[in-house]
Amino acid sequence: MTYAISTTLDAPFERALDQVREALSAQGFGVLSQIDIAAALKDKLGVDVPAQVILGACRPQLAHQALQTEPSIGVLLPCNVVVRATGDHECVVEAMDPAIMISLAGNENLREVAEEARHRIQATVQSLQGTAK
Amino acid sequence: MTYAISTTLDAPFERALDQVREALSAQGFGVLSQIDIAAALKDKLGVDVPAQVILGACRPQLAHQALQTEPSIGVLLPCNVVVRATGDHECVVEAMDPAIMISLAGNENLREVAEEARHRIQATVQSLQGTAK
Repeated sequence: MTYAISTTLDAPFERALDQVREALSAQGFGVLSQIDIAAALKDKLGVDVPAQVILGACRPQLAHQALQTEPSIGVLLPCNVVVRATGDHECVVEAMDPAIMISLAGNENLREVAEEARHRIQATVQSLQGTAK
Repeated sequence: MTYAISTTLDAPFERALDQVREALSAQGFGVLSQIDIAAALKDKLGVDVPAQVILGACRPQLAHQALQTEPSIGVLLPCNVVVRATGDHECVVEAMDPAIMISLAGNENLREVAEEARHRIQATVQSLQGTAK
């Protein structure tokens, strides 16, 4: 079982992050949170790790529908989309695969909304391929 | 398979939220994000849902160890802890069960760190039981 939908971008970190935000927006996702995990680890532990940001992506219609179907699903919301540097001019983009909601919750009524979220996350990731230079 | 560790608090929402933050802190978790999902749904869709906040809880040592073991695990970080009102004086607190990281990633090397995270999340939730009045 996979848990992430991912791609690699041939771009420096800040540019990749901007492009991911734009690609999410084009698929109707807002970004409800942005966590600079590399800065947090530097601040709390004094360790240096490559740039890494976790975006909390949410399409409100889908979140609302999911919460009505499965009230506990908030523990898997919003949909995390991670951008992390793997080189000076290379980043990996990884999104939580919304399909895990169905298997984890064991709630078939989540299938429609999770599949729509998955479709839009896949479209987001696919739209990035080959665009970031 | 469960995906949440939960309890019910006999407390109004704001007090429950404060107590959850304190309980997380006592177990060494910082809060890296706070998403007011009810406000977001009101703002974007105009719908009224009961108060619900998603806290992004992170114990930096554990996050660092997990990322070193499984670089893609950021899509499941931080550990979401949801507080949602189920009555005027009743809230449900639900945390993502860190054990799902092991099963989703299929990486046995995550077991130690995920089990420590799970132990601390369980301790957080248990410490809330009976305290919020």
